[in-house]
Parts: sequence; C-alpha cells; structure tokens
Amino acid sequence: MKRLIQNGTIVTASDTYKADLLIEGETIAQIGQQLAVQGVDEIIDASGCFVFPGGIDPHTHLDMPFGGTVTKDDFETGTIAAAYGGTTTIIDFCLTEKEKPLHTAIEAWHKKAAGKAAIDYGFHLMIGEINEAVLNELPAIVSTEGISSFKVFMAYKHVFQADDATLFETLTKAKELGALVMVHAENGDVIDYLTKQALKEGKTAPIYHALTRPVEAEGEATGRACQLASLAQSQLYVVHVTCQEAVQQIAEARKQGADIWGETCPQYLVLDESMLRKPGFEGAKYVWSPPLREKQHQDALWKALKTGALQTIGSDQCSFDFAGQKDLGVNDFTKIPNGGPIIEDRFSLLYSEGVAKGRIGLNEFVDLVSTRAAKLFGLYPKKGCIAVGADADIVLFDPQAERVLSARTHHLAVDYSAFEGMRVKGTPRTVLSRGKVIVRDQTYVGTPGEGAFLKRARYGELWTNDLVGQR
Amino acid sequence: MKRLIQNGTIVTASDTYKADLLIEGETIAQIGQQLAVQGVDEIIDASGCFVFPGGIDPHTHLDMPFGGTVTKDDFETGTIAAAYGGTTTIIDFCLTEKEKPLHTAIEAWHKKAAGKAAIDYGFHLMIGEINEAVLNELPAIVSTEGISSFKVFMAYKHVFQADDATLFETLTKAKELGALVMVHAENGDVIDYLTKQALKEGKTAPIYHALTRPVEAEGEATGRACQLASLAQSQLYVVHVTCQEAVQQIAEARKQGADIWGETCPQYLVLDESMLRKPGFEGAKYVWSPPLREKQHQDALWKALKTGALQTIGSDQCSFDFAGQKDLGVNDFTKIPNGGPIIEDRFSLLYSEGVAKGRIGLNEFVDLVSTRAAKLFGLYPKKGCIAVGADADIVLFDPQAERVLSARTHHLAVDYSAFEGMRVKGTPRTVLSRGKVIVRDQTYVGTPGEGAFLKRARYGELWTNDLVGQR
Amino acid sequence: MKRLIQNGTIVTASDTYKADLLIEGETIAQIGQQLAVQGVDEIIDASGCFVFPGGIDPHTHLDMPFGGTVTKDDFETGTIAAAYGGTTTIIDFCLTEKEKPLHTAIEAWHKKAAGKAAIDYGFHLMIGEINEAVLNELPAIVSTEGISSFKVFMAYKHVFQADDATLFETLTKAKELGALVMVHAENGDVIDYLTKQALKEGKTAPIYHALTRPVEAEGEATGRACQLASLAQSQLYVVHVTCQEAVQQIAEARKQGADIWGETCPQYLVLDESMLRKPGFEGAKYVWSPPLREKQHQDALWKALKTGALQTIGSDQCSFDFAGQKDLGVNDFTKIPNGGPIIEDRFSLLYSEGVAKGRIGLNEFVDLVSTRAAKLFGLYPKKGCIAVGADADIVLFDPQAERVLSARTHHLAVDYSAFEGMRVKGTPRTVLSRGKVIVRDQTYVGTPGEGAFLKRARYGELWTNDLVGQR
Amino acid sequence: MKRLIQNGTIVTASDTYKADLLIEGETIAQIGQQLAVQGVDEIIDASGCFVFPGGIDPHTHLDMPFGGTVTKDDFETGTIAAAYGGTTTIIDFCLTEKEKPLHTAIEAWHKKAAGKAAIDYGFHLMIGEINEAVLNELPAIVSTEGISSFKVFMAYKHVFQADDATLFETLTKAKELGALVMVHAENGDVIDYLTKQALKEGKTAPIYHALTRPVEAEGEATGRACQLASLAQSQLYVVHVTCQEAVQQIAEARKQGADIWGETCPQYLVLDESMLRKPGFEGAKYVWSPPLREKQHQDALWKALKTGALQTIGSDQCSFDFAGQKDLGVNDFTKIPNGGPIIEDRFSLLYSEGVAKGRIGLNEFVDLVSTRAAKLFGLYPKKGCIAVGADADIVLFDPQAERVLSARTHHLAVDYSAFEGMRVKGTPRTVLSRGKVIVRDQTYVGTPGEGAFLKRARYGELWTNDLVGQR
Ligand SMILES: [Zn+2]
Ligand SMILES: [Zn+2]
Ligand SMILES: [Zn+2]
Ligand SMILES: [Zn+2]
Ligand SMILES: [Zn+2]
Ligand SMILES: [Zn+2]
Ligand SMILES: [Zn+2]
Ligand SMILES: [Zn+2]
Repeated sequence: MKRLIQNGTIVTASDTYKADLLIEGETIAQIGQQLAVQGVDEIIDASGCFVFPGGIDPHTHLDMPFGGTVTKDDFETGTIAAAYGGTTTIIDFCLTEKEKPLHTAIEAWHKKAAGKAAIDYGFHLMIGEINEAVLNELPAIVSTEGISSFKVFMAYKHVFQADDATLFETLTKAKELGALVMVHAENGDVIDYLTKQALKEGKTAPIYHALTRPVEAEGEATGRACQLASLAQSQLYVVHVTCQEAVQQIAEARKQGADIWGETCPQYLVLDESMLRKPGFEGAKYVWSPPLREKQHQDALWKALKTGALQTIGSDQCSFDFAGQKDLGVNDFTKIPNGGPIIEDRFSLLYSEGVAKGRIGLNEFVDLVSTRAAKLFGLYPKKGCIAVGADADIVLFDPQAERVLSARTHHLAVDYSAFEGMRVKGTPRTVLSRGKVIVRDQTYVGTPGEGAFLKRARYGELWTNDLVGQR
Repeated sequence: MKRLIQNGTIVTASDTYKADLLIEGETIAQIGQQLAVQGVDEIIDASGCFVFPGGIDPHTHLDMPFGGTVTKDDFETGTIAAAYGGTTTIIDFCLTEKEKPLHTAIEAWHKKAAGKAAIDYGFHLMIGEINEAVLNELPAIVSTEGISSFKVFMAYKHVFQADDATLFETLTKAKELGALVMVHAENGDVIDYLTKQALKEGKTAPIYHALTRPVEAEGEATGRACQLASLAQSQLYVVHVTCQEAVQQIAEARKQGADIWGETCPQYLVLDESMLRKPGFEGAKYVWSPPLREKQHQDALWKALKTGALQTIGSDQCSFDFAGQKDLGVNDFTKIPNGGPIIEDRFSLLYSEGVAKGRIGLNEFVDLVSTRAAKLFGLYPKKGCIAVGADADIVLFDPQAERVLSARTHHLAVDYSAFEGMRVKGTPRTVLSRGKVIVRDQTYVGTPGEGAFLKRARYGELWTNDLVGQR
Repeated sequence: MKRLIQNGTIVTASDTYKADLLIEGETIAQIGQQLAVQGVDEIIDASGCFVFPGGIDPHTHLDMPFGGTVTKDDFETGTIAAAYGGTTTIIDFCLTEKEKPLHTAIEAWHKKAAGKAAIDYGFHLMIGEINEAVLNELPAIVSTEGISSFKVFMAYKHVFQADDATLFETLTKAKELGALVMVHAENGDVIDYLTKQALKEGKTAPIYHALTRPVEAEGEATGRACQLASLAQSQLYVVHVTCQEAVQQIAEARKQGADIWGETCPQYLVLDESMLRKPGFEGAKYVWSPPLREKQHQDALWKALKTGALQTIGSDQCSFDFAGQKDLGVNDFTKIPNGGPIIEDRFSLLYSEGVAKGRIGLNEFVDLVSTRAAKLFGLYPKKGCIAVGADADIVLFDPQAERVLSARTHHLAVDYSAFEGMRVKGTPRTVLSRGKVIVRDQTYVGTPGEGAFLKRARYGELWTNDLVGQR
Repeated sequence: MKRLIQNGTIVTASDTYKADLLIEGETIAQIGQQLAVQGVDEIIDASGCFVFPGGIDPHTHLDMPFGGTVTKDDFETGTIAAAYGGTTTIIDFCLTEKEKPLHTAIEAWHKKAAGKAAIDYGFHLMIGEINEAVLNELPAIVSTEGISSFKVFMAYKHVFQADDATLFETLTKAKELGALVMVHAENGDVIDYLTKQALKEGKTAPIYHALTRPVEAEGEATGRACQLASLAQSQLYVVHVTCQEAVQQIAEARKQGADIWGETCPQYLVLDESMLRKPGFEGAKYVWSPPLREKQHQDALWKALKTGALQTIGSDQCSFDFAGQKDLGVNDFTKIPNGGPIIEDRFSLLYSEGVAKGRIGLNEFVDLVSTRAAKLFGLYPKKGCIAVGADADIVLFDPQAERVLSARTHHLAVDYSAFEGMRVKGTPRTVLSRGKVIVRDQTYVGTPGEGAFLKRARYGELWTNDLVGQR
C-alpha cells in the first residue's frame, strides 16, 4: 500500500520546506519534489496545508477512577477525539494502589485500552510507595514491558501523595533503570491544611479550590523535586507547570545543568483563575489541579515556552460531566472531581494562540506538541518526526481555517467544553496513523482498536548517535 | 546532473535517520529509502557516515589588514581550508573606515573574494560611526545588497571602538532595517588603561595580553550591549563569548525575553590562558581577543551550549604567521596581531570535544555548527539544512576516523596550528557545495572562485510561517 | 557651658532608651537617668521627643552654576533650611572644570561657604578627567585638605560626563588614596541620543525629560560602575538611585562581596513620573536627573532601604525658581535646570513616610539619615551618633506634631515646593549644632557663618577597632 | 549598690566610644566621661578593654536527653562555662513529646535550670505536632509564660521530624500569637534514605555522618521553610545554617521582603568536613547535624555574616563525652550522639576569627553575638545593649590577650574540645550579670542559681517606636 501526500509544506522541529511525501505501508518512504505517482494507491492533496508529525500527548487520564466516580471519556471516545484534534499518540497514567502488585494495575490499564484505542498509546506507571515487592517488579516493567516513566504525586494527601523518601528513592531507582520520573508538584500538606481551614470557615464554592492551592505551594514542591533530582543525579519531568514560581525553579535547575524538563497545558496558557468565580456552580467546569492561575502567569508560561524553560505541552485530559459528576462538589469544592476535557483541542489551541499570534515559531510548535515528547519518552524516531523510516503519523493542518470550539461539536463524551465559544485559527484536516487515514477532511474514518500499545525505550537510549554505531 | 548519496545517516538540527539523498543540479531533490539509481550521474557512498548540512562559519576575517600587517590567509586559502573542514559557507567581516563611504569597503571586500572563494560567502558590515552619510547608505545595503548584519566594536580604543551612542543608534536603525547587530563585547576603556599600566611596569610578554583583558571587562560590556539592545527592542548577537560572566549576562537577558544570541569559538572551549605562558614567545600563538580564559570557563561555555544560553559556533579565523607577523610583538604584547587559524578545525573540534565526548547531542551539534547561523543571518532555508529544496551543501562525516591536527597537514597558508598535536575523533570525508563535490575523500577537487556571494535576507524574514502564506 | 537635655528618648542606629543627656561645650559628656542639674547653664526639655543625632545630608548642590544659571539657594539659605529640617551637616559637591587646577574649584567652594554656612559642611570633589596635573593634586587633597570623596558623572554628555577610562582610573586611584568614588549613574550616550530624537520629533514638554532617561539607562550605568569598582577592588557609592533596575545591580554586587553603597532621595520615594505630566509647564518643578519614575519603583526603593540594598538618604538639593529659572526650558525640556528643593524636608519625609508608616524601623531611620553617611564619609565618630565624646549635633524631634509642607512656610529662597500641601507626621522642634541651639522651638536662632568646614578622614580609616589600639 | 567601670571603650551594635559606665543595682545608670567616683561601691578598671553587652546565645541544649544518653553539661556547668566565655544569657530548647502536654516538658525544663543557672535564661518550645490540646496550651505559653519562640524539626525522621502540615500550621499560629518559628532545616526523608543505604553498604565510620547529609538536603529544606513562611506571611528563624545552598535561599527570601532570619555557629565558620576523616574514631568529636561542610562553605558563611544574609551566631551547645557517650556509635555512625561543646568559645571564636582577622567589623560583632538575638527573641532593650536603663550584663574584653582553647582549660564537664589547641586573639576578662560581677579576671566568682528565667516579649513587640507612645 502506497500513499502520496502532495503539495504540502512539511514542518519539523527544525525545518520547513515544500515537498511531497511518499508512504509505504506504515512508514515514511520518501520525501521529494514532485514525487512520481505511478504505483501509488492513494493520493492526498495537502495544498495550503502544513504537514506536521502527529501530535503526542504525554499526559492523559482516560477511563480513570477519581473520587468515587470515573472519567467520562474512555480510550475510545478519548482517542477518537484526540485523532480529530491532530494527536496520534498518547501516554496515559496507569494508577497503582499501595500494597497491590504493580502488574494488577498495568493489566487493568491494558484492558481499558485494548480494542478501543483509535491511536497508538503507552503508559506511565504511578509509584505510590517503594518496597521490596515494588523493587522486584520494576526492572522488567522498564526493560521488557516498555513502560519507562514513573509518576510520583507530591499532592493529594492521604490519597496519591508520596513522601520525599519515596520520591527520592524513585529518582535513584529510575536513574539505574533508565526511566524518567514525572512529578505532580504541589505541596500536599500545605494544601490539605488550607483546604480544611477553608471548609471550617464555610468556604465551599469552586473558587476556593484555587485559593487553597496557592502558587507558592507549586513553586515550593517544584523546587524540592528539582533539588532531589539534582542530588540523585537523575532525570525529572515536571507535569502541568502553571506559574512563574515553578518555571523559575525549573529554569534555575536547568541552568545548573540538571536533566530536568517541564510541561505545561493549554488550559494554563489560555484560561485563568477568574473562570472559577463564574456565577453559580459554573466555576466547577474549570477545576484543575494545580488550579488555573491569575492572568499574568500566562505570559510567564508563554515566555517559558519561547525561551526553553518549558519543553512540552500535555493536555492532562481528565473529563467529568458537569451534570452528574462535577456536581458531586456542589456543596463542597473538595468533592468536585478534578480535571477537564482538553485532549482534542490541545494541538489547535497551541497553534492558534501560539503560532498564529506570533508567540512561538512554527518549528518550536512541532517540538512542543510532538517531537520533544517523543524523544523524552522513548518513542523517537518512530514517532515525533517527519523523517524517512518513521511511522507515518501525520497531520495535514490547514492554517487558514477557523472554527469555534464547543461541546456541541467536539467528539468527546463529556457534556461541556472549557473553551466553549472560543474561536481558533487553524485546524487539522486529515490525520494519518501509521500510514492509514483515520481522519479524512475532519471526519473520523478509522476503527477503534486499531491503536497499538507502544513499548517505549529507556530514557535517553535513542537520542544518541549510535545509528551508525560509533558510541 | 543528478547525484545520489547512498547509505548515510542524515542528521538535521532535530532529526537523525538513515536515508538516501538525491541531488538534482544544485539542490536537494529527494530523500528516501533505497532511491532508484537510474538516471543518476554520480553515486556517492556514505556508508558509516553522517550526512550533515554543510557548516556555516559566521565569523571569519580573511585577507584583513590589522596592526600594520594583513592576515596570512585570504579568501582562497581560507575557504579551501574551510571546505576541508566541513564548512560550506562563511560570513566575513567587511571593515569600514570612518569618514569613508561604506561602499568603499564593501567593494574592496567583494574584490578580495571574487575569483578566489572556494565556497559561498556573505559579508557583515562594520559600523564605526553613524552620520548622515552612513544613514543614507544603509537601507540599500540591507535591502538590495543582501548585507543584513552590522558589527560594532566595544573595544580596540582609538581603532575600531564605537561609543555607546553609536551602538545604541545602530541597534535602533537595525531594528528598522531588519539587520542583526553583532558586538565584540569588551570594555575597551578599561583594557586601554590596564594595557598602558602593564607596559609602564615593563610587562611586555604575551601573558599580559590576557591579564590586561579581564573577564570582568567582557562581562560588563556584554551586559551593557544586552541592556542597550533590550531598551532599543532590537536584536543582538554577541560574538566570541569566552567566560561565565558574559554567558550569565546573555542568559539573564534572554530569560527576560530579549532577542539576544551568543556565539563562542572552539579555541575558548578547548584552550586556556595557561597557553599564553608557554616558554619564550610561544604564547603569542594563542593571542586572541578576548583572550583565552582560565580553565573553569570551558565548563561554563559547554554548559551554555547545552542549555541554550549560547547558540552558535564561529571560528573568528584571523591568522598571522608566527614568524614574521606575530613577532611584531616580541617586545610588546600590544603589537602582537590578534587572532589565529581555526576555520578548518572548527567543525571537527566541536564534534570531537562535544558530541564524541557526550557534552552535546548530535542534533544540537548541527544546530550550533550550521542551522542556527543560517536562520539568524538570513541564509535559511537555502543553507543550514538537509531538506528538499535546499542547496546541496553537504558534509559526509566519518565519526570513527581519527586524525591529528597539525600545521604540517592543515590547508591554511599560516605557519602554525594552535591545536598542534591534538587528536580528534571524526573527520569530514567528502564535501559538496551546491551539489558539486569540492572535497572528495579528503582531497580538494574544486576550483577557487566557484563560491558565490550570498545576498542574505533581512533578520527574521525567513523564519516565519509564511511558506503557505498565512501571515 | 553646660546644657542638659532632659526627659527625651535617645535613638541611635541600634538602640532606643530614655535618658538625659549632658553637653559640655561642643560635645556630649554624659548620658544617664535623671542627671544632676547643678552647674548646668541651660536645661532643654525633650519630653515627648526623640533625641536623634543631627541629620547628615551627603548630597547637596548649593550656589551651583548649571546651564547658564545658578541654584537659587546658597550656603546661607540652604543651610538654614537644612537646620530647620533637622540636618546639621552637609557635604556639597565641588564642581571642577577640565584643564583647570582642582584647587581653583576647591577655593571657589570654600568662598561660597565661608561666612554663610549655618551648619558644618564638607566637600566632595568632582573628577572630570585624569591627567598628570590631576594626579599631582589629589594626594594632598585627600590627606591634608580632608576631601576624601570623588564624584564622577556617567551622564551629561559633553558637559560633566567622564568616559569609562576616567571612571576606572579614578576608582583605582581612590583605592590607593583612601577616597570613596561616587557616581551619577546614567548612560549619557543613550540619553543624548534619545533626547535629540525627541526634540527632532517636536517633543519639548517636561514629561519628555523623563521619557528620554529610561530606567534601563540607569540600570545599565549602575551595573557598569559596580563591575568596574569590583574589578578595581575599590569602593563605590552610587548617588540618587531611583529604580528597581539599579537596586538590583547594587544588591547583586554587594552579594558578591563588593564594597559598594547606594543612596536614594526622598523625591524618588514619594513622588512619581506622573508629576511631570501636570498641566502647562507645571511638570518642570519635578525635573530631576535621574527623573522621577513610575510609581511601582517606590516600593522597590522602600524594600531596598529595608533589606539593606540601599544604605543612605541624600537630598540632591539643587533648587531653581519656577519663575525665571525653570522656565528657561519652557520650549525645550532639555533647557530646564535639573533639580529641586529638598534639603529641608529630607529628614521629615523619611520619618513620616518611612517610620510613621511602618516601612522602616526607628533605628534604621537614624542609620539612613545620619549614621551611615558619617561612617562612609569619614565624619564618624564626631558626627552621626549620640555617644559620649561626639559632637553635640542633636535633633529634638516631636513624632506627634504634624505639619504641611509648603513654599509658604519653608525656609529656602526658592519660589516653590515639590511637596506643596503634603502633610507629614513628626517635626524637628529644636536643633543643636556642636552644643549650641541653632533652632529653638522651630525658630532659627543661630548665626550664619557658625558652620565649620569639616576635614574628613580617609575612607574606612575610622570604622575600625583601633580605639584601644589593637590593630 | 553602685559600680563604676572606668577607662573602657564601649562598643554597641552601631557605636564605639571611650566612656565610663555607672551601674546602680542591676541596671546601667550613666555613661559619661570621667564620671564621679563618690558614692561608688566598686570601681572596675577597663583599661585596654572593650566594654561589650553580654553575649546572648540563642541556641543551647543543656541537660538534654538524646539517643539514650544525656548531654554531659547541664545548666550549672553549661552556664558557668558560658559566663567564662562572655555570654550572659542563653535560650535553651525545651523538648516536648508527642501526645504529652507541652507543660510537662516546660515544667521539666524549669526544674533542670532552677538553682543551677549561673546566668539568665529563657526557653524555646519544640513543636512536634499540632492538635487541639497543643492549640489550647499555646496562647498562655506565649503571653503569660514568656516563651515566644517555637522550634520545628524538618529532620530526624521518626524522632523529632514534623511534616510540612505541622510546620505550616505552626507558622500560621505563630503569626497569630506573636511567636518566632525556628527550624532545623534538613530534609529528613532524604537523609533517612541515604543513611540506610550507607549502612547497607557497610559504611559505618564517622565521615558517613557527613556524606549522608549533603548540602542539597539542607538547601532544599531551607528553601521549603522560607517558602512556607512567606506563604503564611509569618516570621522564621533558620538555626545553624552551614552552607552556600542554604544561605542563598534565605538571602533570596529576604530580598523578596520576607521576615526571615538566619543563624550560623562558630563550628561551621572554623571547622570543616575533613575533621570527620580523622584516624580511628576521632572524627566522632566533630559530629554535628547539619554536619561540618567542605572548606569553601566557610567563605560563604563569612560573606553572609558580612552582607547581612545571616544575622546571629548561636552555639548549638550539645556536649557528649568522647569516652562513654560518643563511642555509642563506634560501630555505626548513626548511633553517635550529635553535637559538641561550644557554648564557652562562641564569643571568642567569632571575635578572633571575625573581628581580629578583618572579616567583620566590631559593631557587627556586637550585633551578631548579642544585640540581634535580644531583639528577635523579645529580650531587648533589657538585654543586648549598653544603654541607660538596660540590665548591666557586661563583658570586659581584652582584645590583646591571647589564649589556647583546650579541654584542659575549659570550664565544661565534657571530656574534649573540638577546638583543642587553637589559638584565639582576645578574651573576656571580667563579666557582669545584672550588675554583679560573676567572672572577675577570668575566675568565676558567682553562685549557681543566680540566673533568672526570662519571660520574653512577643516577636516584634519591643522593637518599635512606642517608647514615647506614638504608635
Ligand atoms: Zn496532576
Ligand atoms: Zn494529570
Ligand atoms: Zn572580536
Ligand atoms: Zn572577529
Ligand atoms: Zn546627579
Ligand atoms: Zn546631585
Ligand atoms: Zn538542629
Ligand atoms: Zn540544636
């Protein structure tokens, strides 16, 4: 099976050029000027389009239990929406439970995804405690099962929160095994105290979710994680960075030479704390952790993307219906399920608010939305690039098309959009996953279950120069 | 004329993959797996080689008068040596004189290069003063003549040094015209005072060249240039950064969002101040301005390359014979012509000390040695990349070959090497300039004069997204 | 002659306590509880008052020519006003001219002061150039004539501005001689360019004075001075710091261990740039150099005083009548004489806005307004403290009294007040100079000419521990 | 009872002057030149001496149980030694136990001190947990019992260590009550992990005490405490700061305006990590927590004292015999009791290494060793100053006398000195406590039990200007 993409402008993390692109089977075979059409089974016209590598979303929560309910979107609705939005790979968080084998959780996660995923996927593994059993399971998980990233929570006291000993030992172990440690960096102790105080004072509305999770709690935890990683000489990835205080800690650690990376999410670039003050219970739609911040932090985050202090964009997709799920917290903000729908709009929001508004360059966009995550999480060079030999995960993106984001038109199961009514410039037109068109002219034409589980390489293993074997 | 490069590993500023590469005429036509050989005029085997975009050296001084003598290497010997070393484009500094038309200098520089250059070249224009005449000449120089970068000296008092008013007005004007301002950042006043004091005290040996140009003088001037550029909201490029103090100033300004870039040179990464203390007059071989620094600054520079505080590598090629030129200063270090031979070894030194020793990645190497300079100086996307449609300026680089640097084997006219006896890993094997092989298996097979003058685009003009016209 | 101050609260730079104070002749003889009154010639009741050491104003311009006119206030009106305001010592700037002996200026300044000064005074010496003649005069000026501080201007191009070579050599020389180098830190080249551009564009109103002297120009010059001082390992005092950018440079240099000090002035703590936009030509009353800044810089300055990044308060007294002097610039802001009346209100403004509003402590106030300047400028321990053996320069200050600042009630000759209508808390009630009451119950009762010239010690000479001879 | 100190040089935190000093009963009554001797009961000659306010040691552990043993020195031997060393006030840490009333501990501590203390003393209160019982006891402890400082441990996991929730709530509560929160800032989790790893690997020698408590663990915890204090808008005092990493965190927080203070101890200024590597078990004598650091940190600490990043000097006196106590850890460094004897030498070491070597000024010395602690801990103006009305706690210090520190000559019960054989310049000759001579010519002439418990004022209560009632 040969497919030819004609007349597009190919964009990689460093280069932009007009060329045709030939796909043989699942991979990219040739890139050239006016490639021959003979023997080609399908010709796809990319006139007026950018030809991007498919988006990689390194931060999703599909079919995830939380606070007594389960996210509305599962691996089927979630990955179809992702595909519509230009994302062809996700890495989902596999949540473990203390005192249960890690494999119990991993098998559960495989079951959630199998037969449903419309695009390729991998898993991060949550580490909630370190003990002999955990230490016994980990090596094979990384080396054989292709799960080469661990997640540690510094918040959610009495639920997910790990102490510093666990974080530090995870970092130490990860270095040994070749895994990347990811942290949710907020000081859970401080938040726990502030939350209890707020409830004591009868402060139950959604806005108190934000006010009890101050930027200092994120800045502090981010700095702590960076210092522990530096001490362990290990690698660290800080998920969902939201504020100047946290950016500053990461930037400083990187300046010292630490192997530390930071992710932010579109919601923090585009929305702000004032949304939580909307009348009635409307603010519950905007309850993320960490919370949306005051508007000036948006500038800090854009500048961090521009100057390289942050390097990736995740969605932190974690959707709950406004009616029936979010309203668990109508009388108590601590009971509002945390998170929102964003997997579909991540790509377009970053393009529209970033590239189209001149805040980041086109090649920087590709690095942020795809290439860097592929490299960090052991997917490169199969994923994350337009290059001969790579998987033909491709997005034809029309930069001129405009559309309005809305729950009426999105492809998630959840009942609202946090970006309702927002106009974006640029839209994914056609999307290929491993050579096969799964979205054609903005219509999903794939089959759930086609997405494959990705065994990922060890951290750093594939960046190096060894393609010709010299190292 | 069609040429096919087979079996190589293509490396760009973001990607690394195995593919063949077809050249039609002067440009890259196709990249693919096992491209067809029919109709191909020449097949070049790149087995075991990296296929890099040709190096771009943004900082050379060929055939340049200095202190009553002239650099030993001119556009012929200099560019042939560059080609041997894997560099296919240089940008040379056109020195102007006060009270003379800028065009007098530009024409002189065109004459120096014409009929001699073995590779393509452009010019930066020195600005020594701003007056009505200068202001009248500048617009056409940028827009019509393709000279879109200006050089201002903050040192060399009474010779090249411009005052802050000139620097600030140049920055302001450059912003308007779309030019990039480059500075030699050392405080010339301080150096002038220290130099006179040293001579008064009978300190005439080469080491006093270093001791009278302290890091603080560079750090201060770098900070000053950054602050003036920020105030003018203009773009700035600091040439030959040598020390932690200067790196810090650039990093801080970039963190604030300033459009500021920094270059270092291989000599500062590899050599150190102690070389100037060699017995006899030997130290004169190592007289650069700014001077070589104490060893710990090498680490600071490598870290700056790794963390993006510095973005390019220039050579500052400026060669004078040890016998007959450097010895003008045998009794007075201030009379030693400043500079050394480095154009040929820039590429290999960065690879060997950087990539092969694990200090920088392979894609970072390409960005530093080629791509970033192409983008900054208006040469991209014709130069600086392996991409369909780009000029076929290509280096086949054997990462396993080792060789020893020496004046006996280099291809410059100058009579010594500053890296005499140093072993490097990796060597350019074959080099193409606009599709034509000019170095084959480490032998120059081109013709001087084939190199063309490059009219460069305005600063920022070609980075943008407008290849499909949306901006 | 014995005088006894009873019932006051003595305040020093570190301590606060209730005690009586006995003066014998010109000096403080005893401090104690209920000191005996027999043999006392005069009893002064300080009930309800703080007993402060007399204020020291290290930055005044009296009887100074500027831009074709002369400051309205001379050593008589200026020092009487100072005395009213609680200041008992000033150090005035002696302006020199290039190519004239320094002593010409020093003698002129002695003449201006002699027979007129109501309080004690010293001189700083402006250095505009360094040459053999200057180098010959300087040693005796410091060692014999008691002028141990030099002033260098980095702004006022073509008038006072010295180049970096002069500044650096002055720093070097000052270290050798034991003098403190003071700088007016603004980048005069940048200001000169911006000023010319503004005038070209027909921007002549007072506000353009501020807009052509941006904070970056002050931040840059401050950083430059700090770096040159660090390199010279000399001592530096930055006068009239106005903005966060400059504070940051000083704080950073001090953190590195540099011997650097910073002064701000009440006008920068209390007034802001918007004053220059007042209707008509009113803004000219607020033309200082550096200019008043946007309001947020006030906070930065208060924080700098609190955290020790700045250490003294000068007035930069330099008064010109609104009618007849300031209006020289009615059609061209560059012709407005720079400066304003502030010598009288310095002390009260700092108390009222600082201590009474809780921004600084009472002991910090004493250090800022008196003690630190005495130590830095070689006047301590005769001046700047309430201590046995010190000159009885004393202010009885009623912290409860309120008054309104106004040109109608001030004691300067100039025709306006920059603080017209401002209410302050606390007022000097009675002031003694060397034991003699010169202001009694807010009425001047002294005789002009009583003030004596102060030969000041070398920098650092008197801070040390050698009072019992151990060093 | 009247005593007169003649011919001395009085030194306060800001001033230095020659004067006599008259004491009536327990307080300072007069300071003056040649005070009358009639009616004086005792004349003390201070010729050649500095007259300092008595030292205040804000950090001691006397008669304290630790790791199954009890410190060798109790309130009798400890305070007599302190008096010999020039210290006239200590504040000792009262250790509480979880789930027991705070008053149980307070009463125990009163018993330890009563009838034994040779000098005045106060208590800090350890907070190990916050619950209803604790919250009920705290207000009266601060307001009635005069214990206005709380201590929280961030290290000693499973023993003293409190979690961040406890620290944060303590900060919040302290702000409300007017108490100062003190932290032992090391990351106990990290240390616990590293310690276990070391033991697993058979690393049992004293040096591993230092190697398992890296500077990063202190830097991190210090930053965390500063950020929590800033968020709580409370006051914080970091005890025993040992390294550049921690200094930097405190300096940065203070720059932001936080109300944060830092203490270091003489051992960190004078000794270094290499002491723990002494042959045999000798290194155990140097086991403090945090540990002694590499030598370059000494410079950082001196610079921090000089630039005001640290403000006090505590001893952290906590002595255990080398024979019989330290040797509990001969086979396992974790069993070595932490701490050493230093209460007697604190004052002299700071003078000798600080003032006599030119690292700090004489007035800075007084502030560090006495005045600042008095102000921070609610003892001022009774303690910490030479001022009329203050307690006559006075040290006559001979700056010329030299002596050698040794266990043979010190006055502690413990069997070794960490400074054995070190020569210091300057020695306390005669010491007065509330007007009474307790050390005369280097001989203790007091009576144990004369020392009184000091009820201390609330944090900040007595610094203010209200001595004349205006606030
Ligand atoms: Zn999270
Ligand atoms: Zn998440
Ligand atoms: Zn240069
Ligand atoms: Zn150059
Ligand atoms: Zn000035
Ligand atoms: Zn002035
Ligand atoms: Zn401790
Ligand atoms: Zn302790």
